[in-house]
Amino acid sequence: MSGIQPQCEGNGPSAVEASGSDIDDFLWNFGSWLTDEDEYSDIIISTRIRLARNLKGYRFPNRASNAELREVLQQVRRTCQECESLKNGTYVDIEKLSEWDCKYFVERRLASPQLIENAYPSLLIIASRESLSIMVNEEDHLRIQCLEAGFRIDRAWEKISQVDDELEEGLTFSYSDRFGYLTACPTNLGTGLRVSIFVHLPALSFRSETQSVIQQLPTSEIAVRGFYGEGTESIGNVFQISNQLTLGRTEKSVVERLRWTANKLVELEREARARLLKEKETKVEDAVFRALGVLRHARIMSSLEAMDLLSLLRLGLELGMISDISRVAINQLMVLIQPAHLQKIYSKGLDADERDIVRAEFIRQNLWMEN
Amino acid sequence: MSGIQPQCEGNGPSAVEASGSDIDDFLWNFGSWLTDEDEYSDIIISTRIRLARNLKGYRFPNRASNAELREVLQQVRRTCQECESLKNGTYVDIEKLSEWDCKYFVERRLASPQLIENAYPSLLIIASRESLSIMVNEEDHLRIQCLEAGFRIDRAWEKISQVDDELEEGLTFSYSDRFGYLTACPTNLGTGLRVSIFVHLPALSFRSETQSVIQQLPTSEIAVRGFYGEGTESIGNVFQISNQLTLGRTEKSVVERLRWTANKLVELEREARARLLKEKETKVEDAVFRALGVLRHARIMSSLEAMDLLSLLRLGLELGMISDISRVAINQLMVLIQPAHLQKIYSKGLDADERDIVRAEFIRQNLWMEN
Repeated sequence: MSGIQPQCEGNGPSAVEASGSDIDDFLWNFGSWLTDEDEYSDIIISTRIRLARNLKGYRFPNRASNAELREVLQQVRRTCQECESLKNGTYVDIEKLSEWDCKYFVERRLASPQLIENAYPSLLIIASRESLSIMVNEEDHLRIQCLEAGFRIDRAWEKISQVDDELEEGLTFSYSDRFGYLTACPTNLGTGLRVSIFVHLPALSFRSETQSVIQQLPTSEIAVRGFYGEGTESIGNVFQISNQLTLGRTEKSVVERLRWTANKLVELEREARARLLKEKETKVEDAVFRALGVLRHARIMSSLEAMDLLSLLRLGLELGMISDISRVAINQLMVLIQPAHLQKIYSKGLDADERDIVRAEFIRQNLWMEN
Repeated sequence: MSGIQPQCEGNGPSAVEASGSDIDDFLWNFGSWLTDEDEYSDIIISTRIRLARNLKGYRFPNRASNAELREVLQQVRRTCQECESLKNGTYVDIEKLSEWDCKYFVERRLASPQLIENAYPSLLIIASRESLSIMVNEEDHLRIQCLEAGFRIDRAWEKISQVDDELEEGLTFSYSDRFGYLTACPTNLGTGLRVSIFVHLPALSFRSETQSVIQQLPTSEIAVRGFYGEGTESIGNVFQISNQLTLGRTEKSVVERLRWTANKLVELEREARARLLKEKETKVEDAVFRALGVLRHARIMSSLEAMDLLSLLRLGLELGMISDISRVAINQLMVLIQPAHLQKIYSKGLDADERDIVRAEFIRQNLWMEN
């Protein structure tokens, strides 16, 4: 089993302007960050690079009038539609989306919660299997994102630089020789660059070592965040690690700092896994299989519990205790069991209690592998 | 599936004097209380009647010399070997038993913890598929017990009366016209009769109503005890309900009082089950299937947790949620997972941690029914 099987065939994103059904197509056409793997995928789920850019001559979104923002939006749209890597993308008009469709893109990590909350005239452009996307009129005029599976940081950097260059052919970005790229918030000033990785640290967590490891990271340079970014909690032992500084750092040094941190975390988590196997094998096995048992049998399940249990399942897989489900399938399940995805899968309005019931049902259907 | 399958064939009790292997034969040759069912078996697991008797002319065990007790033992043995219902029984010399074999008979409900602790010269006689047994030199010279599945109180009464009569042909019991049968403890004086039922009250417990129901019972007449009798806790929502008074009550009135109480509890538990199905079906189903999932997958399990989970499984069975395991199989599992039974099943010395591991293994092997 290589991944979660779609229950119906979609056609994938293709149209320039997204209609309701184009949005639905994303559901089972997982982006590359949910289907690919590299040698770090046992720990690093995905790597994301984003650039903050603003158009010269327009106020930042929190200061601009709606008319100005619509102009920004039109300019960006026009330029993107001429870019090689973006012209076949899906263009999602955020204003026209239902609340649940907005949440669905947040869960899919293509939009930020802020994009939805701001309620500015805004646009989400999604290209090349979700790997490349642009939020228009989030905190900045452009938030360009490249999302890759595992730790493909060089590929992500290459891709995003290329798009950045392409866009600069049609757009003039706000830039100061002294500060670099100008951004709405000073924390993004300079490179406008944020590199982040989603790391899964279940063994460190099982050994209650996560906090001490995190405290060893240079917090002036590196930020540790929860599952949905700033101000959110870690769920299922997944942490988002990213650079703190964008000013006075070269892009290369930011990437290298993240690379060093990623390697360090991978090393520590792998060591913790080896020690777990040596010292507490039966205890871990018990936790892993209990998680599997509950996932396979429960009739009601919150997303928080599901994430914690899937995290244990992923640990069991990495330790060789479970073999009939793939890492990719677990990663996909972690996305699919989120509230808005469940709304899409079951194509109906569900309240929280009903979602907990269909979540349990959906997980059961997907976890009856032989083992 | 009607019950737990033996992993090896035993020959059943037959010899007059029990050797080690005769004792082992009990393991899979479940007594009738673990194989039979009646119309109360959804709630009443078993019914036990016991009579306390002492031989005239001998001091009670706590006052008697060992020489006296050996004389008592010889007299009783001789008489029993001439009784129709006891002559083919198994005669177990408690002094010669290992500590684990003693515990094994306690778990099997054929011996009391006191019989083991007292360390008097004592004997355990087991006849007719565990339904009939006699402890010699426990608190009294004789404790005659009849144990039946479900609520076969009349059958038990008939059987025990018959044995009592048979024994009186060869033995002279200590009897006073004023008090009735004399016993070591005044709480048994008079009839020497204790009737008790093991009731499973998971629905009342799920609804947190068990305590209020128990408080409604006439505690001057009826005692509620835990799984292993006086001073023990309820485990797996199983309670032992028995009469308090033996003096100034006729045997008939004691039996009738227990019958009334049993009927009341059965009625209340059945009502609670019906209400559960109406009001909280999904929640119960969730609890039942989570229990099944953990039982089927855990690698480490204490007997306390196992009992609680098996209790939920039994509830699920009674509510029609689970169908591929029988009530009898669950009852048998509840006995087989106890520490001394596991020692027997795995035929080796195990410490508590090792037992928790083999317990989980044994349960897994027995719960992979289809459903």
